[in-house]
Amino acid sequence: MNMRIVVANVNTTESITEAIRGQAEKAARPGTEILAVTPSFGAPSVEGNFESYLAAVAVMDRVTAVTEPFDAVVLAGFGEHGKEGLAELFDVPVVDITEAAAHLACLLGRRYSVVTSLRRTTGQIHDRLRLAGLDSHCASVRATGMPVLDLEGDLERTGARLVEEAEHAVESDGAEVICLGCAGMAGLAEHVQDRAGVPVVDGVPAAIGLAQTLVEQGLSTSKAGSWASPLPKDITGWPIGG
Amino acid sequence: MNMRIVVANVNTTESITEAIRGQAEKAARPGTEILAVTPSFGAPSVEGNFESYLAAVAVMDRVTAVTEPFDAVVLAGFGEHGKEGLAELFDVPVVDITEAAAHLACLLGRRYSVVTSLRRTTGQIHDRLRLAGLDSHCASVRATGMPVLDLEGDLERTGARLVEEAEHAVESDGAEVICLGCAGMAGLAEHVQDRAGVPVVDGVPAAIGLAQTLVEQGLSTSKAGSWASPLPKDITGWPIGG
Amino acid sequence: MNMRIVVANVNTTESITEAIRGQAEKAARPGTEILAVTPSFGAPSVEGNFESYLAAVAVMDRVTAVTEPFDAVVLAGFGEHGKEGLAELFDVPVVDITEAAAHLACLLGRRYSVVTSLRRTTGQIHDRLRLAGLDSHCASVRATGMPVLDLEGDLERTGARLVEEAEHAVESDGAEVICLGCAGMAGLAEHVQDRAGVPVVDGVPAAIGLAQTLVEQGLSTSKAGSWASPLPKDITGWPIGG
Amino acid sequence: MNMRIVVANVNTTESITEAIRGQAEKAARPGTEILAVTPSFGAPSVEGNFESYLAAVAVMDRVTAVTEPFDAVVLAGFGEHGKEGLAELFDVPVVDITEAAAHLACLLGRRYSVVTSLRRTTGQIHDRLRLAGLDSHCASVRATGMPVLDLEGDLERTGARLVEEAEHAVESDGAEVICLGCAGMAGLAEHVQDRAGVPVVDGVPAAIGLAQTLVEQGLSTSKAGSWASPLPKDITGWPIGG
Amino acid sequence: MNMRIVVANVNTTESITEAIRGQAEKAARPGTEILAVTPSFGAPSVEGNFESYLAAVAVMDRVTAVTEPFDAVVLAGFGEHGKEGLAELFDVPVVDITEAAAHLACLLGRRYSVVTSLRRTTGQIHDRLRLAGLDSHCASVRATGMPVLDLEGDLERTGARLVEEAEHAVESDGAEVICLGCAGMAGLAEHVQDRAGVPVVDGVPAAIGLAQTLVEQGLSTSKAGSWASPLPKDITGWPIGG
Amino acid sequence: MNMRIVVANVNTTESITEAIRGQAEKAARPGTEILAVTPSFGAPSVEGNFESYLAAVAVMDRVTAVTEPFDAVVLAGFGEHGKEGLAELFDVPVVDITEAAAHLACLLGRRYSVVTSLRRTTGQIHDRLRLAGLDSHCASVRATGMPVLDLEGDLERTGARLVEEAEHAVESDGAEVICLGCAGMAGLAEHVQDRAGVPVVDGVPAAIGLAQTLVEQGLSTSKAGSWASPLPKDITGWPIGG
Repeated sequence: MNMRIVVANVNTTESITEAIRGQAEKAARPGTEILAVTPSFGAPSVEGNFESYLAAVAVMDRVTAVTEPFDAVVLAGFGEHGKEGLAELFDVPVVDITEAAAHLACLLGRRYSVVTSLRRTTGQIHDRLRLAGLDSHCASVRATGMPVLDLEGDLERTGARLVEEAEHAVESDGAEVICLGCAGMAGLAEHVQDRAGVPVVDGVPAAIGLAQTLVEQGLSTSKAGSWASPLPKDITGWPIGG
Repeated sequence: MNMRIVVANVNTTESITEAIRGQAEKAARPGTEILAVTPSFGAPSVEGNFESYLAAVAVMDRVTAVTEPFDAVVLAGFGEHGKEGLAELFDVPVVDITEAAAHLACLLGRRYSVVTSLRRTTGQIHDRLRLAGLDSHCASVRATGMPVLDLEGDLERTGARLVEEAEHAVESDGAEVICLGCAGMAGLAEHVQDRAGVPVVDGVPAAIGLAQTLVEQGLSTSKAGSWASPLPKDITGWPIGG
Repeated sequence: MNMRIVVANVNTTESITEAIRGQAEKAARPGTEILAVTPSFGAPSVEGNFESYLAAVAVMDRVTAVTEPFDAVVLAGFGEHGKEGLAELFDVPVVDITEAAAHLACLLGRRYSVVTSLRRTTGQIHDRLRLAGLDSHCASVRATGMPVLDLEGDLERTGARLVEEAEHAVESDGAEVICLGCAGMAGLAEHVQDRAGVPVVDGVPAAIGLAQTLVEQGLSTSKAGSWASPLPKDITGWPIGG
Repeated sequence: MNMRIVVANVNTTESITEAIRGQAEKAARPGTEILAVTPSFGAPSVEGNFESYLAAVAVMDRVTAVTEPFDAVVLAGFGEHGKEGLAELFDVPVVDITEAAAHLACLLGRRYSVVTSLRRTTGQIHDRLRLAGLDSHCASVRATGMPVLDLEGDLERTGARLVEEAEHAVESDGAEVICLGCAGMAGLAEHVQDRAGVPVVDGVPAAIGLAQTLVEQGLSTSKAGSWASPLPKDITGWPIGG
Repeated sequence: MNMRIVVANVNTTESITEAIRGQAEKAARPGTEILAVTPSFGAPSVEGNFESYLAAVAVMDRVTAVTEPFDAVVLAGFGEHGKEGLAELFDVPVVDITEAAAHLACLLGRRYSVVTSLRRTTGQIHDRLRLAGLDSHCASVRATGMPVLDLEGDLERTGARLVEEAEHAVESDGAEVICLGCAGMAGLAEHVQDRAGVPVVDGVPAAIGLAQTLVEQGLSTSKAGSWASPLPKDITGWPIGG
Repeated sequence: MNMRIVVANVNTTESITEAIRGQAEKAARPGTEILAVTPSFGAPSVEGNFESYLAAVAVMDRVTAVTEPFDAVVLAGFGEHGKEGLAELFDVPVVDITEAAAHLACLLGRRYSVVTSLRRTTGQIHDRLRLAGLDSHCASVRATGMPVLDLEGDLERTGARLVEEAEHAVESDGAEVICLGCAGMAGLAEHVQDRAGVPVVDGVPAAIGLAQTLVEQGLSTSKAGSWASPLPKDITGWPIGG
């Protein structure tokens, strides 16, 4: 089945978009085209609520500007705001990488932990998992203390820190599965999995896999309730980037 | 104690800002100045997630543009996104009217219900209450089916519908207190309270009361964790309205 | 990617196995082979805990007897016992259709309901969803009152009853998505979706989609915790069917 | 607005009443009169359930004996029984300092901890927070191990122990706000706040602030449900102190 | 095994004590002596928090005055305060009839409902079940609307109302077991059980059964934590009745 | 009252059945006959889900084969599957030792911990407690790391490890009561209780005590809902052992 999936980075940094695109393409089946987009305004790296709300709008703005038809949207920011807005705006399935990673993790073990960048983002991740109804199997959300933009810089050090926190999660928190909690960690899942000895789920491929499944089965966002299309209105200053 | 409180409407409709200002001023103590602001972009009435995320950013944008010093911020949208972003951006207390109403309601009875405008917003209100840790005493969130902009139009009809749903909440859901779930219902609390026979909490005065208390007691947002100030970064295209 | 998925019916009725196989094959991608199996002992239709425990063992017994290599197992019984046992026995991913349906449903709306056969099975379904950590978004589990073996008999009547309960779930319980809660309802999703106006998820295709995704991404059950392989022991009378 | 607030110490020790009065008066606005009362029977310091139930009745007894008109009641015992009884007896708002502290703490950060006197009281505090629906944001309840009557004795040592436990709460439990969990800690909030680097909420001023807000806004306990006035009955031996 | 169990009525009405004694003696094994006591002060019937707190103290006071040695205490008030105080005061097991009924109910079915007297007491019952950790299987707490003192008056009418509410609980709320939610309903369990077709648990016999089991097995209240003996102190005005 | 209780070991090891019988007989009242049975197939020691599901069926099979009339069934495996199946099959009360221990523990303190054999079983125990609605007071489930069959071998070492974990549970997790989490620990309760200083509940005597209470009071499993008798059907290959 041929389909096009828009994958929206929440950060304005192009190299992160490229890393996300790479991970998404590896997870894509033959016939699935990946269209990775970068928001036209916002923070180079999203590490907090102010930046995340801004990214939520910037991503809605950027995906609205896509001119090609598409079959699904992936929100490629871990623990970020905005999914419900995208779900309202489009008729195609919208998959958030936070939820996608946690859904697959739940299939693989009794409890999972998330390993993320800075401690300041852990509360936000907990909140997103809670709203998604996926918190009861979450053993912990742990931070490496590394800012998003440093993650790509020294992959060896990043990998070592991820393994360290993953091992703490397994030994102290009872995690049986690890989710990589940052789009900027793209590509490190296998490395961590080999060393920590438990399955490691990366959000971007997880979301691509789920989006493909939904599209193949003809399933899309319910328009009968919370995520119904916006009522027709004059919205001042929207779209923003246009 | 003298103080200035910025009260931010989430809708771009000025008449709602005026109604909010009126309610806020009635709740203000001598020495408290109310500065009611309207976002410079967004929806005339916020009724869903897309519009609410846009309002979250528009409100952050608008409050950032305030040039007078201020002592607290009130987010005057019921069930809307954005509070955590404001909490990060400013050093003064930020009070959301959803939370404010529910906090006071919990002091007044064992369970409370929210009566709001459209059914499509009830899930969002539930989510905000859940994130705020205030859901366990929430008996129900009921919708009148009236759009925000119609609420002001025929106050008699609005009042009658509010009373009707409030009575259902008391009789069927076990509510002992009612929260008015829309900034556009400003001023109807007394009307509903008299008829429904239970205390009715309006979010705007509730938030003003809490904000004044926090300022008087020298309490402000914790900067040691989830709502720490944003890290210094070049944010492209911010502020938006400027 | 070529793979073989074992799909295990929990009932001993071959026609149900055939219906399951049909649904699984429709959801299978090119290169995915479906191997549908029927337990060699147990109840013709599983409608309760005694029968379900028996089926749990009969399914473990039957899948152990599969001689071809396989890449994933799907447990095709809604709300049934046994998933954790299969997860221990095999090194490949094991996907339960109850969990699969609920995982996809959570991606499509804020709350979902399950419509199943007899009322006596609703508690068991609630329990499985609770253990899987998927109960917080479950609006209700509703029974049509039709026994499993009657579902296939008069598809028109079955469809009508499903639509009726789905509509109650949407209107009274706040469901935005429906899960068909019985493997014997295979093939009716589209019918219900068209009439109820909300997405309808069928467990068998949902599980096939998830299993394919896990296999493609090299993910399998964590062996570091609750679902580690059984310790080597002399098990008296096992396998049972052999 | 002029008002009189009765603040009821739960301990029979007058010096604690004086400390509470001091804190209350600092939080009172011009026009608010504080009437601090001490129960006429019970324990010098309440540290457990037996003593707390006794205090619940002694406080109801003492407040019933107040002859001046009053506008609100504050129950100045942290984690103590009795609030619902007071709420039934009087037509004015009743604010418990446990709840008051936690309500304000929730406005200031994502999670709060309580630091209290003896470990034996921590379960009771957890229970009161749970009943008040305020437990989901409670990171921990920590004990200093200091009896209530020792807290006043060596303020320096008390302050040091409070800071120590507050720091553990922030670092190990994820607290972003601290509540002082004992009326006998009155006046130490600023000291701890300066050292621990997070907002510190003291229950007595918090309760005064909330009580003033409720009175100003004409809100009082719902009499339509759980806290309706007691039915007229002959109560043997009541009032007790009279 | 010979033992003496003190059964404390919370109401000052002797005829209720007699009814409780009768039920307790029917549940007592040979060798178990029942010592039923009535508080020396308080309300003739306890129907609310004020009266319940008073009863909590009156019961502690009355049991403290018992001069015979005893092996267990049963608190015979449904949904009433005071159990933790008794647990601190005595070295023998203390069993509350609310908890006892719910514990046995959980053994008999997946969900239970409580049928009680007045609606005003339902919140209090919910709270006690929640604190006891027994609320997750509670389907509902329903009120007959009959005051406690009327229950004994017209047993036929009382029985009919109980059956009516029990049937609603089974049909509408999914209850599979009923608990009689008032000590004043003593002796009606069989009547309701025969008509409603589900097991009906009466709190007094349930508590006697549990108390006997604990005593036989040498188990008593943990003194290592929340219910440790009160610290030695001068308690003014205690005991009250003495 | 004369009665016969069937106590079903889940392991095929006869010496464990004997130990269980011993504990059961010590807890039995005069007139209560214990009939301890061993499954005819399955694992010598049950330590995981595969073995536990097999045991669930083997126990149902074995109890079905009992020819003497009996008044109650005790499922003597800690944290094992199968209780609901037994509850459907028989008209007499069925008591699981996991639930029995936790029910009694809740009467004795505010929080309890379970100390069990291998870490791999802790998740399963948590799940059973959760389904039974008894998890909210569970402070922790701790593993000694000792396989079931080693527990009997060196009672001194087993006792020492149990005490060690019990002490950790009390000091670090806030447990006030300990449950022995394995039928193979029969007889060690007193030893641990003496050293750990908190009440220790052993599941087998707890279940015998509860079963006797239910039988005496004429209470049995509700047949109106989840645990109704199986519908009449031709079950292939059942009974298995026959």
